[in-house]
Formats: sequence, structure tokens, C-alpha cells
Amino acid sequence: MDALITDTLLVSMDPGATGGSGELGIVDRGAVGWTDGELTYVGPTEAIDPNDAARTIDGDGCLTLPGFVNAHVHGRYSVIRGAAQDVPEIEWMDRALDPIGRHVSAEDGIVGAKLTALEAIAAGTTTLGEYAADVATLVDRVYRPFGLRVVATETINEVPGDREDLDPNEPFAFDRDAGREALDRTEALFERYGDDPLVVPAYGPQALDMVSMETLTAVFDRAREQDRTVHVHVAQGERERRAVAARYGEDATTVGVLDREGFLGDHLLAAHLHGATTAERKRLATAGVRMVGCPSSIAAIDGIVPPIVEYREHGGTVGIGTDQAPGTGGHNTLRELRTAALLAKVDRRDPTALDAPAALKIATIGGARALGIDDVVGSLAPGKRADVVVCDLDAVGVAPTAPEPFHTAIPNLVYGTAGAEVRDVFVDGVQLVSAGGIVGVDVDDVVVEANERAERIFADAEEEWRAAGSTLVDDVDAGRL
Amino acid sequence: MDALITDTLLVSMDPGATGGSGELGIVDRGAVGWTDGELTYVGPTEAIDPNDAARTIDGDGCLTLPGFVNAHVHGRYSVIRGAAQDVPEIEWMDRALDPIGRHVSAEDGIVGAKLTALEAIAAGTTTLGEYAADVATLVDRVYRPFGLRVVATETINEVPGDREDLDPNEPFAFDRDAGREALDRTEALFERYGDDPLVVPAYGPQALDMVSMETLTAVFDRAREQDRTVHVHVAQGERERRAVAARYGEDATTVGVLDREGFLGDHLLAAHLHGATTAERKRLATAGVRMVGCPSSIAAIDGIVPPIVEYREHGGTVGIGTDQAPGTGGHNTLRELRTAALLAKVDRRDPTALDAPAALKIATIGGARALGIDDVVGSLAPGKRADVVVCDLDAVGVAPTAPEPFHTAIPNLVYGTAGAEVRDVFVDGVQLVSAGGIVGVDVDDVVVEANERAERIFADAEEEWRAAGSTLVDDVDAGRL
Repeated sequence: MDALITDTLLVSMDPGATGGSGELGIVDRGAVGWTDGELTYVGPTEAIDPNDAARTIDGDGCLTLPGFVNAHVHGRYSVIRGAAQDVPEIEWMDRALDPIGRHVSAEDGIVGAKLTALEAIAAGTTTLGEYAADVATLVDRVYRPFGLRVVATETINEVPGDREDLDPNEPFAFDRDAGREALDRTEALFERYGDDPLVVPAYGPQALDMVSMETLTAVFDRAREQDRTVHVHVAQGERERRAVAARYGEDATTVGVLDREGFLGDHLLAAHLHGATTAERKRLATAGVRMVGCPSSIAAIDGIVPPIVEYREHGGTVGIGTDQAPGTGGHNTLRELRTAALLAKVDRRDPTALDAPAALKIATIGGARALGIDDVVGSLAPGKRADVVVCDLDAVGVAPTAPEPFHTAIPNLVYGTAGAEVRDVFVDGVQLVSAGGIVGVDVDDVVVEANERAERIFADAEEEWRAAGSTLVDDVDAGRL
Repeated sequence: MDALITDTLLVSMDPGATGGSGELGIVDRGAVGWTDGELTYVGPTEAIDPNDAARTIDGDGCLTLPGFVNAHVHGRYSVIRGAAQDVPEIEWMDRALDPIGRHVSAEDGIVGAKLTALEAIAAGTTTLGEYAADVATLVDRVYRPFGLRVVATETINEVPGDREDLDPNEPFAFDRDAGREALDRTEALFERYGDDPLVVPAYGPQALDMVSMETLTAVFDRAREQDRTVHVHVAQGERERRAVAARYGEDATTVGVLDREGFLGDHLLAAHLHGATTAERKRLATAGVRMVGCPSSIAAIDGIVPPIVEYREHGGTVGIGTDQAPGTGGHNTLRELRTAALLAKVDRRDPTALDAPAALKIATIGGARALGIDDVVGSLAPGKRADVVVCDLDAVGVAPTAPEPFHTAIPNLVYGTAGAEVRDVFVDGVQLVSAGGIVGVDVDDVVVEANERAERIFADAEEEWRAAGSTLVDDVDAGRL
């Protein structure tokens, strides 16, 4: 055994865990051991000899659980964190974000993805579900070097380059070349990462109104044949709704069209769903469609709570995602869980909605199932990979904790999270965070570079940004920003 | 000058700040200096000679603002953090919290208050609005020794000791002796802390249904005569509503009764208000009543968003509070602001509701006004006290920031907060936090003691807790906690 964490409050998420109890597979004074990145022991400390391990890690006073899965992320945008929030929904993309986003170069985006990775890793994230155009570059230059596990979705988008003249109420001709190229890039991803245990590609037809039916059909056919994931933004808002109605008929909806075309099934991962009806969500869940919800993002940008609780009630698989930094603030999973829980409670006017155990499940096994990688991660069980996070229960906002009559560490971690809890993080048995610090990466260097780039980007964008006239411009003129 | 912070992004909250712009009094490359705890300089760094100061503090790469005011806190309960959350509203107090709370000794409560203080200070809080019975003990043994500014509200509650037999639908006889004793304790507070610049007492008739009209009249008379604050839980829920109707008549409401009795005015600080109507809130605001809202707490316990945005729209003064740890998780102001903003946005279905600048105002000048101490704190202006927080903008979840065309540091601090941003904290010119660490307090010792006490409290409470039968008992039996 390469390493063994001992004497820890183990929340394995494996109901069958040795010595574990209940739904969360809790083992008091538990131990987790691995060799070559594969978990070989998960159970009580007393039943394993620490001398079997080359290295022991004292997990006393800590809660140890599967590494967090952040299932829907656009990492590049962290380089323009703060560019767009607190604006009306209709302005967020076109008037607030894009005027600045247009000045983000490829290299700027790499630095943004580095920030995303560092923030996520420090927060206990072991798997990122990145969704981007040319996602291979982010995987090669950032996520793999930083040691993360990644489900890499390549964006497929056939909306012609010059979008400003397009009327969302009129069906336009899709750029089929762009679609073919994206599809080729995706196939190249599958080729390239076929043997890489830490990278799983996925198809990313961005949204129903942005991709031709021919391309969608090709994507879904391949996904079903090859047992791959199709990751789509579904029922996310007004632009999509109007464009779908314009192209497919007045009563057409995204879910309705996907259903009619036979695209529903467990190969589909649908992000958002707040624009779908209850009946549509039920249909999706029944068809085995997986969901990822992004509570901070949709609350910040739309003022809406994504239907995470409802989807679970329909029996669907749910993961959580932090989407993009502008709007949400960024990529911290425990913060996202606390936020998700409180938003769910007010959305349902029900303090029992999305409780702490459910939240931790969504960030671990839920996210792994959502991304289709629950055969290897999401719970701590022999045979799965060693993606593990050790959380310090003595952090001043989480302590004190008591084990009886119930483990207050569970609600305290979710509701008390304030950033100082994550102590150690392992991905595939490799340590990325030790004693709260990221291993082997000069974080300050990345921040310095990000600051320089952000200042340049925002300065370059100033004129267009003002001309776009979002309410943030008014805020500046009123001396509020 | 004792100390001078230089080269900082200064958000003074003083629209009249020298060299400052706009509503937030923003000074790029600003400086803040003080002597004997009184601010003597607030303005551009270039216009002050650092040699005038015995000590200079480099504020470059930081956002400096007035220390945060957490206006409504019950600090003792942090020792039983995690005791009660994720339960139906009707169960929270009686079935989940009280069975455990009953086992909290006076000394346990002191340790709880210590945790609260440490968490708050580390999070940039400089003023706490503690609300407790025998609040003097918390002030003397915890808050003053830890260097905090405190508005100390002494609870006045005349509900007879043996409450379990009381039917909230029947008016019961108040325990007038308890009321007199509490009033005496409060007067002793004013006597005792009259010359203490860091302690301002306040009257705390807990709620309308818990205090006799005679005692309320005495309290409000004194408050008006002496220009003091009366801090009351107003329109907080069903128990109060029913009991008020039982005692004062079917159509009576808390706000209606307070209004009828002539108790409304700017001496009144009303906490919560989610049970009041829009017309009542407007009436309160028009009468000059100040409000404190506790978003995490009311979301967690009731599944409701407190009417912070609405109260501001009525022109009322609003502060923010973290209430008690069980439910909310604890006492972190920036986290509370981020939560408040997102909850407001979904409550109003409006992404512009409670934007980042408004949130920061509520935590500073808003809170100071709510507690009636805005003559001395809440904004950085010469003559006010040196309660200052310096936030590191290079924290990995906040960076990068750009100053033009707008200060992204402002939204990034509020939305990106993940606990690592607070670098330095000063109260009355005394440094409580330096380089992210609390000065002069062995935090580990407090945590160790809190853990021991919590384990004992929860173990002692186990039988009663099970017998009380909240849904958490079911969760334990299902292996979810």
C-alpha cells in the first residue's frame, strides 16, 4: 500500500463499506488506503495494519470523503472574474460579459483556467467537468499538468461567426463547417485520451438552437454506439426558447424536440433545466438523463433556483457545477453546496430541502454519475480510484464537532464552510494539496500574471464596454464601482 | 499618527472622502491613518507623508474598508454548532435545538462565544451585535478581552420558566420578577459601560409575545429619554403571531401593537420582519425604525428570504446579522453578504437585487446605523474610530482584479469570498488580525476546549434528543448523519 489515511471520520458514500453505516457509508475512526492510485482498503482503522503502508496520513480530527466533482465549468473566464454580475438577465451576456470577453486571448484563457484549477483544487475538487471550445488545450496545458481528473467537453456550435446581426426569432443557416471541425476535434480528443485514465472526453453540442439537427443526430448516434456522454445546455433561457420556437415551431421546446428526435437517454447530461416544465424534467429523469445544476450561477445571472431538488424527486441523477466566474464568483465546491442548500430551502419554502447529507452526495457520487465516471470515482470503495479529500474539522468556522448522537461534522462542513477546511487532496493517489497548501505550483506567480492580464483585458475593453451600456456603466458613473 | 495604511484600494463608505468618488467614497491608492484609535487621515496616499506615522502598513493589492458590523448574533450557541438545521421550521427550536441547548452550561456558553468572536474577527468583523441573557458576562469574559467593539443587548423575557405547558393560543401571566431583574441588569450595563468606548448596551425585550406591556412601556420610555436602542425580534414567525393574536386580539399583529402603543421610532431596531406585511414594513421604515436581516438563518430555519431589499426600497436603514450557528453554520460576514445577495436575487427574480456595492454598505455603514453607532464607525472618515479591515485581493478565489473601467475588486470580494481574503483587522486602532492570523489568542486551545465541551453536551443530551423525535433522528437511523 502506497498510502493509508487513518483514524478519520470517513464518509465513503458507499453504503456497502466495510464497517460503514447507512446511506453515506460512515465509518468512525476509518481508514482509506491505496496503491498505484487504486483504493485497496476502505474500512475501520483497527482492521488494517498501518505498517502495510509506505506512508500513513493521520486523519484524526478530520472528515475524509471522496474528492469533489465539479461537473460543469467554463474555466477560462476566471481571468475576467467580476466582469459581469448584478445586471438584468437580458444584459448579462451581450452587454456586460461579451464586450470584455472578446478581449480574452487564447493565452489569457489558459491563465484563467489555471486560476480555476487552483481555486478548485484548494477547495477539494478532484474532478472538473470543463466545457470549452478547444478544450484539449486546457487539458494539456492546465488540468493534466495540475493533476486534476477531467471530463472534457468540446463545444460544438454552428452559429455563424457574425452573430450580432442574427435575429433569434428567425432561423438562420448553421455554419456546418464549424460543426464538422468541432466534431473532428472531439473525435481527436477521444483518440488522444483513449488511454489516459484521468481524461474522459464528451460531446458538447452547446444548445439546441446552436447546432443543426444533422450534427446533433451524428453526435447522439456516436454517443450511443460508443457509450459516450453528450453534455448539452438544456432549457437555460429565453434566447434558446425563442430560437427553438422559431426553428422548430411555436409549441416546440428543447426537451420536446430532443425527445421527438429520440435523443433522450442515459448518455445525455443536461445542464441547467430551469426553463423546462415539471413534466419535461420528469420525462428527462425517467429517460435516465443526468442533470447538472449550477445554483450560484443561475441565481446570480437569472435570479432563479435550478431544479436540483425536483430532479432528485423525479429519481434523476444530479451533479453540481460552478459554471463561470463572472456572476458566481468562482469555483469552490463546499461554498456551492452551502449556497445550493439555502437556495433550495427558500425556493421550496422548506428547510428540509437539500440537506447537508444530500449536498455532500451531490458533490461526490452525484457528480460522478452525472459525468458518467462513477465506475471509477464518486465514492471510496476498493477498486475505485484514490480521489480523496481530507477536511479539517478544527477549522474555526466548522468546530466544534460531536460524533454522537449524530455526526455534526456533516452539517458543519456544509454550512460552516469558510475556506479553511480542506487540508489534503489526492487525485489518483497523487497529493495535490497538503496541509491546506497546493503542492508544486507557484500560486502567486499565476495570480500575478492573471492580474496583469486582467488589467490589460479590461483596459482594452473599456470603450466597447461603455458603449454596450449595461447597468454596470451606470454604477460606475454613480461611484458605486 | 500611530499607523498609516498606504497605497490601498480604499472603499471608505464616505461620499465626502477627500479624493474619493461617489457613493462608496472610493479612493484609488488611498491611505488611512489614525492616532489613539481615532481616524485622522482618509484620502490619497500621495497627499500624506508616511513619515508622519510611527508605523506604515502596505495596503497595495488590497481593498481596505470599514470593519464589518455583524448586527445580530447569539454567540453562545457556536458551542453546539450543527445541533439543528435541515428540519421543518416547526421542529427547529423545540425538537432539534432545545434538547441539546438545555445542556449548555454557562461556561460552555463562554467557550461558544469565544468561537463566535474568533470566527467573526478572522472574517473581518469589528463590531458584534450580541443579544443574550446576562450579556455582561460575554462582554467581560470574551468580547472585550478579544478586542471587539460590541453593542450588547440584554435579553428581557417574562415567559414563565416552565414553558412547556404553555399554550401559545392562551395568554399566560408574565413573570414580572424576571422582567424587573432583566431591566435591572440592563440598567447596570449602562452604568457599568458608560465610559467604555467599545461597549454600547441596548434594551432587549425579546419579542412582543414574551414581554408584558408594562415592561415594554418602561423600556421604550427609558430608551426615548436616554437616546438608547431597543432591539426586538419582530414578526419572526408563527408562535409570535398566534400568541400576539391570543393576547391582543384576533387582528392584532406585532407591528400593529407596537404602532398603537407609540413604540415606533428611530430608537427601535427590529430584527427579521419576514412575518410582517409590506404595509407594515413601510410603516416601520417611515417611522425611522432600523432593521437587521439574517438571511442565512431565516433561509436555513424557515425557508424564507428576509425583506432586506424591500426595507431599503422603503428608505429604511438595514444591517445584517448571522444570528446563531445552528442553522446558519456560523459568523462570517462576507459569506453572509454573498448569501444575502444571491437569496435576494432569487426572492425578487431579479439579478440586480442587492448588488455587491449595496451588500458592502449594509455590512459597514448600514450595520453601524442599525446599531446606532454610526457616529463613531461604519465609514472611514476623520474623527471616526479606526475600525478597519484590509482584504487581500490576491486570494486565489478573488483574483484577478482590475481597476478600470470599474473596480472588479468590489464584486470579486463579495461573490468570490472563500475565507482567505481578510488580511488585517483593526478595532479602535488595535490590530486583531495580522497577515490572516488572529493576534494574541491561541485559537487551537479554544477549539480543543470547544470540541471537548461539545462532545459532552451532545452525549448528555442524547436521550432527550432522541425522545424529542425531530427528523434528524430519522436521518441518523437512516445512516445519513
